[in-house]
Amino acid sequence: MKKHDQDFIKRQNRLTVFEIIKNQHPISRASIAKRTGMSATTVSRIVGELAEQGYISESEQVSSGLGRKSTLLDIAASSVLSIGIELDTHQIGIGIVDMKGDVVFSEAYPRTADESPDHTIVRLESIIGDCLKRHEIDRSKVVGIGVGLPGIVNHKQGIVLFSVQLGWKNIPLAERLKVLTGFNVAVDNELKVKALAEHLRGAAIGSSRTALLGFGNGVGSSLILEGQIYRGDWNSAGEIGHTTMDPNGALCECGKAGCLQTYINISSLLGEAGKIRPIRTIDELFEARRAGEGWAVHLIGRALEYMAITVNNIVCMYNPDSIILSGELIDRFPGIYEEVEALCLTRFVWEPVRGSFHILRSRLNERGVIIGSGLLAQDWFFELD
Amino acid sequence: MKKHDQDFIKRQNRLTVFEIIKNQHPISRASIAKRTGMSATTVSRIVGELAEQGYISESEQVSSGLGRKSTLLDIAASSVLSIGIELDTHQIGIGIVDMKGDVVFSEAYPRTADESPDHTIVRLESIIGDCLKRHEIDRSKVVGIGVGLPGIVNHKQGIVLFSVQLGWKNIPLAERLKVLTGFNVAVDNELKVKALAEHLRGAAIGSSRTALLGFGNGVGSSLILEGQIYRGDWNSAGEIGHTTMDPNGALCECGKAGCLQTYINISSLLGEAGKIRPIRTIDELFEARRAGEGWAVHLIGRALEYMAITVNNIVCMYNPDSIILSGELIDRFPGIYEEVEALCLTRFVWEPVRGSFHILRSRLNERGVIIGSGLLAQDWFFELD
Repeated sequence: MKKHDQDFIKRQNRLTVFEIIKNQHPISRASIAKRTGMSATTVSRIVGELAEQGYISESEQVSSGLGRKSTLLDIAASSVLSIGIELDTHQIGIGIVDMKGDVVFSEAYPRTADESPDHTIVRLESIIGDCLKRHEIDRSKVVGIGVGLPGIVNHKQGIVLFSVQLGWKNIPLAERLKVLTGFNVAVDNELKVKALAEHLRGAAIGSSRTALLGFGNGVGSSLILEGQIYRGDWNSAGEIGHTTMDPNGALCECGKAGCLQTYINISSLLGEAGKIRPIRTIDELFEARRAGEGWAVHLIGRALEYMAITVNNIVCMYNPDSIILSGELIDRFPGIYEEVEALCLTRFVWEPVRGSFHILRSRLNERGVIIGSGLLAQDWFFELD
Repeated sequence: MKKHDQDFIKRQNRLTVFEIIKNQHPISRASIAKRTGMSATTVSRIVGELAEQGYISESEQVSSGLGRKSTLLDIAASSVLSIGIELDTHQIGIGIVDMKGDVVFSEAYPRTADESPDHTIVRLESIIGDCLKRHEIDRSKVVGIGVGLPGIVNHKQGIVLFSVQLGWKNIPLAERLKVLTGFNVAVDNELKVKALAEHLRGAAIGSSRTALLGFGNGVGSSLILEGQIYRGDWNSAGEIGHTTMDPNGALCECGKAGCLQTYINISSLLGEAGKIRPIRTIDELFEARRAGEGWAVHLIGRALEYMAITVNNIVCMYNPDSIILSGELIDRFPGIYEEVEALCLTRFVWEPVRGSFHILRSRLNERGVIIGSGLLAQDWFFELD
């Protein structure tokens, strides 16, 4: 075997051992050897190297079976950190994410809808610097920044191509933030990183095909296929909010008529509600429904039916093994998840595939985008060697 | 290196050389060596083995550049054959498909809509036996049978789970046909194998993400991702015909209301047309449109709009690089393809992604399912060693 082949195999073995510890901690050296087919000596050598680099920790534990003490290995979660950012119309969320996907701390800052890209980017730099300083984060452990936002993102170049919610078009966010902060920057659509987070650390661990739906200021979806974000050709796969339902339907902000999101998203619901009386927030609308006001019962009832239709259409198109319902309309209002689930299973999902998937709640909720952005940055920028 | 590793590498190298000749014929030994990084000796040895087995042929050709003669390699297409079958409500199509995806011959037999699975399967056996005999096909070259049909198929077990068009439910087609014919049998959804055929030998060679739409007796789609059929968890991905458009729409045969296919498929169109006057065939309906009868203009116009909507919804969900329009309604009526394309590009496709894909015609047309079924059987059952 050639020298570079040997080096390649060594690196592969290191990576294999590291990934096993990362995903199946706590675990013993013997289990790793058994699982990989590597010799005990090889495993011990690699574990020694990883411990020396500070990536893993050891602990003595009594194993449940025989009562013998054995040394178990775990990753040193805080040895690798990333900055996860959620950029939304009215808020900037930031968190430090460790190797286990835990959020070391998180904070939120208000943002005005008309804030310019320049202004937001400069603010991001100052927020990041300030947070690292106040929380005394060792910058050498931070492998990069991940940003999740609504819209279509060229993830390879880190360019925000198009975001109605932010009012941005063709903004080279990754490049500009890298120049300002010195960190590598990954940028992606918020639902894509959220689904990644739920797959790696949330509701859909172990799933082969998870679809995540987001119902809030927009309507969107994303798909994780065999552990990878399904992006499509322009990283715009999953834009179910702009699938057309009715060519004679209400106009959408995109210029088409009858887009799915016009039946569901918050601004459409508030727009309709405003025809009856001044309703400023979605909470007021739900309150009117609870009070039994007919128009509100109709409006939200119809939105829930279209959420169930969204589930059906996702199942027909992607045939996933699990579907996560998420977003403000699901997370913030008790009972909504259950109502949508019932509509799916009794009426709206095509009968032959009704048993083909699980409907799940988000487990990471509003932290999902920060965690997913952070994990994406780790995936892209952390190198073991 | 261990013995079994060496064997593995040898097999891989053989396969690599074979695949290159298969996909890039005619090609010289030198080009193969250059492309693979293998030595000239290794390439020559492998080529020699493959030629001895009868899988490849050689020819002397004058290369365009220097005017020197060089020996070019090609696959011996007819050294490996498969039987491709298209099973539809009113017809059974059969063809012998060679390694290049060419159809050696094909025939069609009528089938009645109420023919029982037993009857159809026994007929298939007799049709296959008869065809092989009449066309003097060497059975030893036939690696297996592929069957494409409308409906949901458990492709791993070759069971037709559910087919409205055939009226079948839970029919173990592969097993039963294997017992009767002695051949290995692959069964799959017709649009999935059709897309595979277009990807391998038709309109979408070289594409990374091709979606194929079928507009005919049903409405469906399929997606080829990096050369593989995207199946989803139950092999039912792409069932766009049962995505819901309008919860208050017309009832679909599936029991739901407002399925996409109720606006487009032939039986729905004929059902609606029947309210005006007796219309028995889709040709009569198109004739009424050409004659300017208002209701027919409306009915087909609406169907075309929903075809464009189907394209939009596929683009939003899958973000493919190309979309093939196929099926009876597209293939048989001149001008329909152009009308749908124009609707897509002027009104119905979401503006931000309008430039993200090509709309293509099927190149294999009505032979697509036979070719795709045949190629699937070759992919599953042909082994080089």
